[in-house]
Amino acid sequence: MVVDRSIMVSVVEGKSTMLKETTKDKILAHGAQIIHQKGFKNTGIQEILYNAGVPKGSFYFYFKSKEDFGLELIDYYFNFFASMIESHLNGPEVSPLKRLQSFFEKFRSICEQQGCKGGCPIGNLTQEIGGLSDAFQHKLRHALNKMKAGIAECLDLAQQEQEIDPALDVSETADFILNSWEGALLRMKAESNTAPLILFEKMVFDRVLKQ
Amino acid sequence: MVVDRSIMVSVVEGKSTMLKETTKDKILAHGAQIIHQKGFKNTGIQEILYNAGVPKGSFYFYFKSKEDFGLELIDYYFNFFASMIESHLNGPEVSPLKRLQSFFEKFRSICEQQGCKGGCPIGNLTQEIGGLSDAFQHKLRHALNKMKAGIAECLDLAQQEQEIDPALDVSETADFILNSWEGALLRMKAESNTAPLILFEKMVFDRVLKQ
Repeated sequence: MVVDRSIMVSVVEGKSTMLKETTKDKILAHGAQIIHQKGFKNTGIQEILYNAGVPKGSFYFYFKSKEDFGLELIDYYFNFFASMIESHLNGPEVSPLKRLQSFFEKFRSICEQQGCKGGCPIGNLTQEIGGLSDAFQHKLRHALNKMKAGIAECLDLAQQEQEIDPALDVSETADFILNSWEGALLRMKAESNTAPLILFEKMVFDRVLKQ
Repeated sequence: MVVDRSIMVSVVEGKSTMLKETTKDKILAHGAQIIHQKGFKNTGIQEILYNAGVPKGSFYFYFKSKEDFGLELIDYYFNFFASMIESHLNGPEVSPLKRLQSFFEKFRSICEQQGCKGGCPIGNLTQEIGGLSDAFQHKLRHALNKMKAGIAECLDLAQQEQEIDPALDVSETADFILNSWEGALLRMKAESNTAPLILFEKMVFDRVLKQ
């Protein structure tokens, strides 16, 4: 999963034009963007506030600590992912399998636009800070399980429409797909190109899911 | 890939009992162990030296900078992986496919022993510092490509012995397996159990490679 502020804003705007960006939203949005590139520990609170154009004292008005901010950031990243699921996986215009393909293709094109750098922010945080506290681990585990559930739901529909192998265990397959995608995004960062994502899509759709 | 100092030492000892651990080896071995648990940026040079029982001034005698140490650390981790390939993938006693299975099972059992915390040190560094410098990225990319080559070689033999689908592109499949494994190790850290690794093995051996 990759996060671009302009995309985040358009996602939010798409949901409701009545929404107004609060100071807290600004801190989260700018923090999300910087941390996606530099990592959680490597990003200072001052840097986030400076980029958000928010007074220095504001941070502790909205967040108890950097850990508290990190926990809200996981929700923020996950909400972006949920919006993408909403717009790509739930449309009835094309078949469930085509929707899943378009979902991964969309993320691949965002990765391409961003120079194959950021990867998945939820995966990054799991790697970087997942072990730091039970609260972080619980939140990240929950986010990954919700991401898996979105994929599983789509696979379930695809199975009902006989687009994928009826013998597949949908829940297990969704877990395997999510984990493999996380690994492909990691390798993308090492290779500086989207070849690992293209290969992931090929292997999943032409082999793993094939009847 | 997971690193345990006792395992590293036994691997080295297994290669040659004539090898004597130098001060540089000690710094690398202790650094490898701490960084595997805490991350690269979160580990101070003093902490490594203290744990290695080495005088404070020694570090810059052996390494130009922390980055220089990081580059050697990637080699150190990779050499561990290479030793595991050597001992698990190249033995002629069992078939190539069984060797590949035993390789992933061995790593899973090490993960289990270590409380499912560390994950793959090469994957961790890719996530954490892969984007920090061209030198890091180049070295990590090279290590991942060598890991993939070890898997590909084994798959090639398995294909010659008609143990896997003859239609599979061995090089692509090795890349997909490596990336999926990295993702499964990441998810293991979030879940605090080896279920993602067990699922990875099931999907790869029962589905992806199946004739």
